[in-house]
Parts: sequence; structure tokens; C-alpha cells
Amino acid sequence: MQFGENNTPFGEAEFAARQAAAREAMRREGFDAILLCDPANMNYLTGYDGWSFYVHQAVILALELDSPLWIGRNQDVNGARLTTILSDENILGYADDHVQSLVKHPMQVMAAALRERGLAKARIGVEADCYYYTARADAVLKEELPEAEIVDAGILVNWLRSVKSEAEIALMREAARITERIIEAAVEAMADGVRQCDVAAIIQATGTRGIPGEGGYGGDYPAIVPLMPNGVGTSCPHITWRDEPFSAGTATTIEIAGVRHRYHVPISRTVFLGTPPKKMLEAADIMAEGIEAGLSVARPGATAHDVWHAWNSTIERHGIVKESRCGYSIGLNYPPDWGERTLSIRKGDETVLKPNMTIHFMPGLWMDDWGMEISEPIRISSNGSETFCAFSRELFVK
Amino acid sequence: MQFGENNTPFGEAEFAARQAAAREAMRREGFDAILLCDPANMNYLTGYDGWSFYVHQAVILALELDSPLWIGRNQDVNGARLTTILSDENILGYADDHVQSLVKHPMQVMAAALRERGLAKARIGVEADCYYYTARADAVLKEELPEAEIVDAGILVNWLRSVKSEAEIALMREAARITERIIEAAVEAMADGVRQCDVAAIIQATGTRGIPGEGGYGGDYPAIVPLMPNGVGTSCPHITWRDEPFSAGTATTIEIAGVRHRYHVPISRTVFLGTPPKKMLEAADIMAEGIEAGLSVARPGATAHDVWHAWNSTIERHGIVKESRCGYSIGLNYPPDWGERTLSIRKGDETVLKPNMTIHFMPGLWMDDWGMEISEPIRISSNGSETFCAFSRELFVK
Repeated sequence: MQFGENNTPFGEAEFAARQAAAREAMRREGFDAILLCDPANMNYLTGYDGWSFYVHQAVILALELDSPLWIGRNQDVNGARLTTILSDENILGYADDHVQSLVKHPMQVMAAALRERGLAKARIGVEADCYYYTARADAVLKEELPEAEIVDAGILVNWLRSVKSEAEIALMREAARITERIIEAAVEAMADGVRQCDVAAIIQATGTRGIPGEGGYGGDYPAIVPLMPNGVGTSCPHITWRDEPFSAGTATTIEIAGVRHRYHVPISRTVFLGTPPKKMLEAADIMAEGIEAGLSVARPGATAHDVWHAWNSTIERHGIVKESRCGYSIGLNYPPDWGERTLSIRKGDETVLKPNMTIHFMPGLWMDDWGMEISEPIRISSNGSETFCAFSRELFVK
Repeated sequence: MQFGENNTPFGEAEFAARQAAAREAMRREGFDAILLCDPANMNYLTGYDGWSFYVHQAVILALELDSPLWIGRNQDVNGARLTTILSDENILGYADDHVQSLVKHPMQVMAAALRERGLAKARIGVEADCYYYTARADAVLKEELPEAEIVDAGILVNWLRSVKSEAEIALMREAARITERIIEAAVEAMADGVRQCDVAAIIQATGTRGIPGEGGYGGDYPAIVPLMPNGVGTSCPHITWRDEPFSAGTATTIEIAGVRHRYHVPISRTVFLGTPPKKMLEAADIMAEGIEAGLSVARPGATAHDVWHAWNSTIERHGIVKESRCGYSIGLNYPPDWGERTLSIRKGDETVLKPNMTIHFMPGLWMDDWGMEISEPIRISSNGSETFCAFSRELFVK
């Protein structure tokens, strides 16, 4: 089955390279097979794209098998045929009475598929701290495969995703054009008396519409909805919109992402309606200085810690002490997070930066009853770093 | 800390009643404490609302403690203060170096909180098959509390949510007005040559804007993005939008939800551009008949199975055999699912319907290379059922 010419935005060679890298990592770590429930990892190795991760599903990659297997709900089998590079015999469905049942569990079907392929005694890596690989899923898999060695493979495939191919970077550059349009539309729409939900509606519509007209392209859904805490809410980054209108004398932090074929380029900015207090203007200057300091050290060979240190020593010089991380790897993802859960820009993260790592450098200040966010999505280049977006780093005052 | 007059859309009495019901269920099942990671259950007992479920967090309810505890990331503590009914001493944060770390785990902090409250040897219920309660979370909790008995509480709190209060029904009625606006806007916007992403943008903006003007109210984000498979994609329910324009001679199934303060009222409809094939017109008639049959038996005292049977015997009479469930409990939720994971309208589900149960009666036909969806969100009333929305059940032909 096919949608038009191609089911995925990538060619067969790209998937072959990804699978080869995964096999190499499996050999290094001594896995006969890995069972992946992270929708981003499932997509990465096969192309699978659908909002079906609310039921159990997995991609299994085994050293002894030529092709990955996709296993999911029967009614999603056609979705797998339409969006993956897999041939039909490698797409398996389970009956609907396994869905949210207290009697049957989809992991019984996964275990049977592994047994049938001679993997009953295999060493199988699972993603033990991944949303969608639940405690129960793990227990059922272990019950069903008593002779297998089922161990935590951690974020083995996430790490492969951390360095992007040129094709992935091209999609992220397309996403970045959408990001710029969204943040521009959001800043423009915010005004005293405008309901918060109306600005959220503009943000979502702009992101999904993407680039209109000749040569344009559509946007995809972000793995996180628009975050836009207002007033005292800015003291916390993860509050969504409310009915109430924005009012003069309050700040709003906006965090959004443009998305292209599941590839995210997030950004955040802060808007103040009216005359901002002196502490916010000062904080904006400090953040701009800290971002410049971080960007100036972000290059191949530097560590994530080094970038954090450049940011942190800048703000400390101004008397601000923050414990939170100020960035993370970005790219392909699904709800609930557009971060890749690999490198973090924080104290002690000794990940060495490489060309085509992509990072949301996201220094936020969340204080007692106010906060500020100004961030940059960046790509590590051959000798430094470049920002994906071109958008003023100021505190927007309206 | 407060947002305006109230942090939550419900009064203290509503939360007291919910907590009392949870305590009763705990006593019945022999739990000293329950640790809830399902964001909907966390919201249900405390009001907590924020997009922070991509990191580990929990609400703990213990028979010996007067108030629930909220435990999450330090930077989300202010969000908990702003959106819950909890007092500050019952809101605990963990340091940021626990976030997506390979060294520290947030469940260590949860375990410490339980130990400090004399619960080191308690019988503690966890939500073992809930997204966001990972295999690793379970392993760490058990490591940290070797003397506790940590057992699967299943969907104990989900079941409490299955019967709505009048205040919850009032929110769902508000959500239903948004649902009608969305589906109307979607059907209107679909036309030959219009990009799929542009219709998705209209759907999202309409839902988030909610009801404009005097007496209006905003919409909240749905737990599932607009599903709108087109053409051969209609053979699978969970495909999202693409860049391509809709074209004459193809069908599209649309599934969306209006949402008010996290309460969902989903609906689905099918649109055909051009002259539909006879099989689709016939299928639409059969579905309308099957929906009427199901609704006519949906009443207090009937079982979920009875509703399925009424639907299924109708379609079987017309020679159609389907295995999938045709409905599920709906209400308060977060991504990735607006279904409550309790009752399903399917064969063998002997859940007895009660007044104010709310259900997405969602009979879909997903065939080899085409499909159709026409659904109704319903409330079980005192002596029958009522639909939340008023929207024609036809196959829309444009």
C-alpha cells in the first residue's frame, strides 16, 4: 500500500544506514534483539507514523532477522503498510480484544512473535524508562519469555538519533521556517484584552498550515502544545493557556515548535505588555549575554557541560543561581516530549558535541513569582554552531 | 499562589468527594497508599494541570495522610501551587539533576517521601499499565522500598472517573458546543484542492478558540490531534494529516474532540468529495441503523456488551463482520488518549451502565482499502441515553 510516490520523507538508503547503526550498537552491547516502544525510535528505524502509541506497539530489530518487525493493533496494520518501508510480512497485528484489557495483553503477542523467530532464549534489550513501555508490559514480557534475558537497553537508539543526517537537517531547516512564522504571529497577536486561547489558536493554526503557496509545505503537530504561562504563571514553564485575556502589566513566556515530518525546531521568547519592571529588562540583557557566551563555546569537541558552564558563569557573575538544565537534544519526536532524552546542557554532562547534533539551547529563569525564557535552537556545525532561526533575542515589549 | 479567584474549575467539595471515593476504593482493595502517575488521575484528585508529564511525577494518596501529596520536578512546583487545591507543604519538588538522568531517578525521591511518612512497609498500589509509569520507575521504587508491598492497582482511580458529577457533565456540555463548531468547520473547509494541513489548522484553531464573544469560553487542547486519514488512508483510523490537497473522488474520516478544562467530547464523521461509490452510501445507511440500535439499548442496567451486541447484530445482518470495539469511556484526559481505559463497548464487556457514564460510541468500519466513521458522544441518562452533540449522522458528500 502506498500514499503517492513515497511513504516516508526519506529514501531506503537512509533507513538502511539507521538500521545498520542500530545493529552495530546491539552487537557492541551484546543484544540479540531490541524491542522498541518509543514512537520516535519506531519511526526512526521503519518510518512508522500514526497516533496509535496510546495502545501497546513495538518495532523489533534482531541480529538474525533481515528486516525489523512492526507489531501493533490490527486496525493500525494498514497505517504501518502506508507509512513504513517494511514489506507486508514484517507487519504483524494483534486482535482488538488485547486493547486495554485486563485479561489479554499485547506483550503476549510480541513474546509469541519473538518465540516463533527463535528468540525465546535471546538477550533482548528494552527501553525500560520510555513512556509507553509500562511496568506491566515489562512484567508480561518477562512472564512470557522466562528463558530470555530481558534487560534495559536504556536510550541506545535515542543516541543514534542525536547526530542528524543531511536529510534530517534539511527537514529541520524547513521546520525552522515554520518556527519563525509561529513566534512572529504569537508576538504580534498578544495584546491587552486578547484572550489567551485566541493566541494559542493562532499559534496552532500557523504551525499546522506551515508555509503556504507555491513551493510551500505543511506543518506537523508538535510533541508539546503551545506553552504560554502568563503573569504569576511565568514562574513555571509548563502551564498552557487559559480563557482569561492578557492584561497590561504582565509578562508571558511562549514556547512553541515548528515541525516538519515529526522533526521539531522549538524556540521560546518572552513578551511584556506595558512597561516592564527593571528586573526583567536586566534579566533580558543577562540572558542575551549568557546565550552569546554559550553559543561561542558550542562546537565539535566541546562538551555539553562546557556550554552550560559558559551560560552559568555569565549569570552567576550577575548574581543569579539556577539549578535547571539549559538545553537538550532535539529532532524527531512524538508527544509528550520533543526533547530526545540524550544530551542535556547541564553541569556534569560530558557528552562531546559533534557536527549535526541539534540542540534547543533553552536557558530559562523561573523565579519565585516571575520568569523569563529566551532560547535558540542550534545545529553544531563543522567548526562552531549555527542557529536554525533568525528572530530577535529581545524581551518583546508591547 | 493563585490564578485569579480559583485555581481549578471545581470547588473544594468536589475534590473532597473524589478523594473520599478513592480512599474507599483503597480500603476495599487493601491499599495503605496509592501512587498515581496517570496525569488524568493526578488532576482528578488534586486539580494539577500542566504539560510536565514528560518527566516523572506523581500524586500519592495515603489512608494515614489527610491530604494527597504532589511530587514533581522543582520547576513545576509553582505550577502545582497555581493549579491544585493542595497547600504548599503537600507539594514537593525534586532537583533538576534527576531529569532524564542515568544516575539519579525521580522515583528515589518518591520513595523517600513515602519512607519519611512511615510508609516504608506499606502496601502501595501503582498504575502498572499506565503510560508514564515505566518499567524503570517500577524497578527503582521496588529497590528503594524493599519492605513495602508494591502491587498493581490497575485502573482503580480511572473507574471512579467513569461516572461523572454534575459539574463534570456541565463542562462536557460546554465541550460539546466546541465539538459541533469544529466538525462543522472541518466539513465546510474540505474541498478538492485544499491542502490537508490547512483543514487541520482550521480544526485546531476552532477547537482552541472555543466559543467567542459574550458568554463564550475557550477550548483546551485535545489528548489526540485531529485524525483525518484520506483516500486509502481511511482504511486505518490513526493517520494524521499530510501536505497533499484533498482530491475529488476520495473519502476522509475525521475524528476530533472539543475540550473544556481537559474534559473531552469527541466525534467522528466521514466526508466524500464527488460522487461516492455505492458501497459507501450503503455503509453509511448501515452505520446509521447500527448507531440507532446501539443508542436504543444504552441505558442504566444494560451492559457495555449489550450496546455492542445491538450494533454488531445490525451490521452482521448486512453481512459485515468487525472485531474492533465500538466505543469507550470518555472525559478528563491528557495525551496520548482521550479514552479513560475503563469500559469498552465490545463483546464480553459486562460493565453495567450507570447514569452519567459518558461514552464515545464510535463504530468505525476499517476495510481493506477504505473505511468509514460516524460516531456519537453520549451520556447515560436516568432512563436511557442522550447525545452530547447535535450534528447530522450522514455521509457528507461535497
